[in-house]
Amino acid sequence: MYLCPIMGEFELIAAIQAMANGLPANGFEGIGDDCAVLEIGGGEALVFTSDALCEGVHFLREAISARQLGDKALAVNLSDVASMGVRPVAVLLSLSIPQELPTEWVVELMEGFTALANLHGVALIGGDTTRSQSGLVINITAIGRGKTIHLKRRNAARVGDWILVSDRLGASAAGLKDVLQGRYDTPLAAIHHHPTAEIEAGAWLGSRTEVHAMMDLSDGLASDLKHILKASAVGAEVELCDIPVAEGATRLDALTGGEDYKLLLTVDAVHGEALMADFEQTFHRPLYRLGRITDTRELVWLEKGRASAQELSGFRHF
Amino acid sequence: MYLCPIMGEFELIAAIQAMANGLPANGFEGIGDDCAVLEIGGGEALVFTSDALCEGVHFLREAISARQLGDKALAVNLSDVASMGVRPVAVLLSLSIPQELPTEWVVELMEGFTALANLHGVALIGGDTTRSQSGLVINITAIGRGKTIHLKRRNAARVGDWILVSDRLGASAAGLKDVLQGRYDTPLAAIHHHPTAEIEAGAWLGSRTEVHAMMDLSDGLASDLKHILKASAVGAEVELCDIPVAEGATRLDALTGGEDYKLLLTVDAVHGEALMADFEQTFHRPLYRLGRITDTRELVWLEKGRASAQELSGFRHF
Repeated sequence: MYLCPIMGEFELIAAIQAMANGLPANGFEGIGDDCAVLEIGGGEALVFTSDALCEGVHFLREAISARQLGDKALAVNLSDVASMGVRPVAVLLSLSIPQELPTEWVVELMEGFTALANLHGVALIGGDTTRSQSGLVINITAIGRGKTIHLKRRNAARVGDWILVSDRLGASAAGLKDVLQGRYDTPLAAIHHHPTAEIEAGAWLGSRTEVHAMMDLSDGLASDLKHILKASAVGAEVELCDIPVAEGATRLDALTGGEDYKLLLTVDAVHGEALMADFEQTFHRPLYRLGRITDTRELVWLEKGRASAQELSGFRHF
Repeated sequence: MYLCPIMGEFELIAAIQAMANGLPANGFEGIGDDCAVLEIGGGEALVFTSDALCEGVHFLREAISARQLGDKALAVNLSDVASMGVRPVAVLLSLSIPQELPTEWVVELMEGFTALANLHGVALIGGDTTRSQSGLVINITAIGRGKTIHLKRRNAARVGDWILVSDRLGASAAGLKDVLQGRYDTPLAAIHHHPTAEIEAGAWLGSRTEVHAMMDLSDGLASDLKHILKASAVGAEVELCDIPVAEGATRLDALTGGEDYKLLLTVDAVHGEALMADFEQTFHRPLYRLGRITDTRELVWLEKGRASAQELSGFRHF
């Protein structure tokens, strides 16, 4: 679960979190990670996450095909499940649909949605379809299931860990720039509209005990890494030259762009090289090492080993 | 989970259901009841339901207070859990918020929401807050937990069962008429804006094995009863004079009005009187008996014992 900033009003989110903390937990481990967790016995746990995609905020209906939107809406939710180190098993889908939208368009959206659900073996177990007086709103709750010992959390980074990412970064942010300039058909726009969430890699990394903290990159490395550092009460050094930048993107896209939906993880340094080799053998693509966890509680950006003065903040969806 | 009709397009809902049926189930019992069900071992099950409330469709922001709206949005979801015969334990809440809405208004909404969550011991475990380019959209996924043997489904009505409802009906529909005429401060409008979901009664009725089928009344008796009849492959005779009509409502409100959020259930005739007596002793209010399940597969409305020609259909939210 991820709480986006709204209208710059972090106070609102803090107020909601404070209210949530005042309620009973009922065995759920709630707000703080990409998903809430419920242990269900037999060494297993369920995880839960919800995301809303609103027309005009998260997507422009004229820029994305119905099929792409159905695919993307599901992908961003499954990404949150994958980042916990477990497999998605089911989703609930609520569609709030403007009256002028043809039924055929919605059916196409559902085709994109179910194609991805089918690819990853995810059940569609419920939801709601309602009319919307205004824009299209897609709300998805995704449920994951896996072994409790496989769960990865943001608070598990340890001093000395290597910091890795699962793919090159920044393509989605670069694609968004194309979209906002009205160029909807570029290769980068296609990546922005069709993110490949790390469903298989997430479950695989979940099963590796040498992987400590994990989350998905939805707001940009500079912003998201801070969540791991804060939750784990540690610091980090990141070498700017080691950040893997996607083709067509800039380093700034990779650092501060949103919606990459790749994995950010920390791994025990002793097992770092072996993990990277195993990953590459399994997925035929590398993990990228870009820094290490320190005991300073500060995030330090290095430029060829020397501290950089760069001040970076994350992507805002609006 | 309840799929509302959209734009009269039952075809869309049928298409979505067909797509859902083509996906793996992963142990979930999906679309068909108020909630999806997952057995988790130890004789226990979780249930899941999602509902979207859209400004201008499900509520008028000028007619309802923020606090009432937060309360009602949660109540209608908890009602779906209660109708399965188990207790709600957790919710995920997604808010899509128009830019012009003051943060204080949203905090008040959350106060109404958390007051009801607290009353019923429900955890807030996650969700999303985003900006909306248009109206306010509230999406809630509710999770219930209870013994598998306590679960009530729509397909469990048996020939000879008594048909009962848990309260007088029609007040919400009568209140909606006031609201649509601009009279926001009437007692009936207050009922429409502050429904009392049957959380305690639902769990209590769930624990009674003589209760067979159960669901909540969100679209009106005439429409909702048909879901039980169809799922159970049975018919029913309902005595119009026995339908409990709320003060200020008409019989038509009670029959075809929506959003009562009371329980509709069938009970083994042999144990009907004892159940009604126990309920009254426990809750200090009666259950109402209004008909019986037949083997005809037809729904027959009786007027003082004689078949009525009345053709009735349910409430549409829009």
